[in-house]
Amino acid sequence: MELYIGNKNYSSWSLRAWLMAEKSGIQFDEILLQLDTESFYQRLKSISPTLKVPTLIDGNITVWDSLSICEYINDTYLSGTAWPQDPKQKAKARSFACEMHSGFHALRNALPMNIRAHRYVELSPAVLQDIARIDSIWSQQMAEFATAQGTWLFGKWSIADMMFAPVVMRFFTYEIEVSQASRAYMEFIVSQPEMQTWIQAAKAETEIVDIDEAGVDR
Amino acid sequence: MELYIGNKNYSSWSLRAWLMAEKSGIQFDEILLQLDTESFYQRLKSISPTLKVPTLIDGNITVWDSLSICEYINDTYLSGTAWPQDPKQKAKARSFACEMHSGFHALRNALPMNIRAHRYVELSPAVLQDIARIDSIWSQQMAEFATAQGTWLFGKWSIADMMFAPVVMRFFTYEIEVSQASRAYMEFIVSQPEMQTWIQAAKAETEIVDIDEAGVDR
Repeated sequence: MELYIGNKNYSSWSLRAWLMAEKSGIQFDEILLQLDTESFYQRLKSISPTLKVPTLIDGNITVWDSLSICEYINDTYLSGTAWPQDPKQKAKARSFACEMHSGFHALRNALPMNIRAHRYVELSPAVLQDIARIDSIWSQQMAEFATAQGTWLFGKWSIADMMFAPVVMRFFTYEIEVSQASRAYMEFIVSQPEMQTWIQAAKAETEIVDIDEAGVDR
Repeated sequence: MELYIGNKNYSSWSLRAWLMAEKSGIQFDEILLQLDTESFYQRLKSISPTLKVPTLIDGNITVWDSLSICEYINDTYLSGTAWPQDPKQKAKARSFACEMHSGFHALRNALPMNIRAHRYVELSPAVLQDIARIDSIWSQQMAEFATAQGTWLFGKWSIADMMFAPVVMRFFTYEIEVSQASRAYMEFIVSQPEMQTWIQAAKAETEIVDIDEAGVDR
């Protein structure tokens, strides 16, 4: 199985699929392509119909898009256990994941994932509204599931956490203020060994993608 | 079970969930709220955490977002049969659905769903690129599954068709040129009795939502 991803410093959608693949314990080869280069498109041309990462190749099956990769791994290798098993919680987790998948454009445009940077960006009302909604999701889930050691959004890891992991990284980069409960969730996420591996690799990268460089250094 | 939707003329995301609910044969009450009105927000305040439609209430379970409503109905009432059963086809259908769920922003902004209208809009390169991708998805699926009577993207109806139904309506409104195969798909979709019911109701609506009125009359 091969998972095609972009630069670890910048490629937020890649992080979702990669973290899912890691958490699920499947064996896969990671193929990192430099975003915004000629060879990126050359390589993906015969692989992904959208010329985007992440793309997962599993034998004769191709899956593109971060959420469908998560659903595919869950269906195929995890017997559905990457969603909460209670129907009410599952509906909630899926709705959160879909909200993140289709929305939060203001936030995503203004605060690109840029793990190695530490920046200041002025926050527009639309970005502040996105931040408030995410803070509300995380803090309500922490109120329900938190333990002293920190926890996942639904007590055990689920696809919802995969979808939000890149936002956690964005909030650290731009020092976004959130509730204490959300801050605890952010720290729990970055403390995961898989996340530490990704972050170290991101910090070691030197390539610069101009459109993902926002704000001024702190 | 209650499904909250917006104006049938304009609310593209509502159409996805409504069509799914109709195709699945579940019993539900449709509650139509006028987009962009005070009472819309008043009514949704206690119902949907995002204050958006569609939102489905099934007993004590709330599902918001068009894709998660489709997945919820599929899981709960259809034993998973609203995706193709072959794993390769299922991965493809889900990837198409996710592409539609998170992308095509240029197209969606430039060509808002407006079923009763018949308009001309100048198409930017970004919109043309979105149209080309959709045309390619539809025509490749028709090449694989088409019959003389027309057909669904994967031979029988799936969530992928639900996700694309509003785009079919957009393409009719703005007279978008597509391949013959895609045109056959569009005509098959609007010929469905459920779609005819929705379209008739949309045409009977008189409310105007300014931000969804694009282009000039033909």
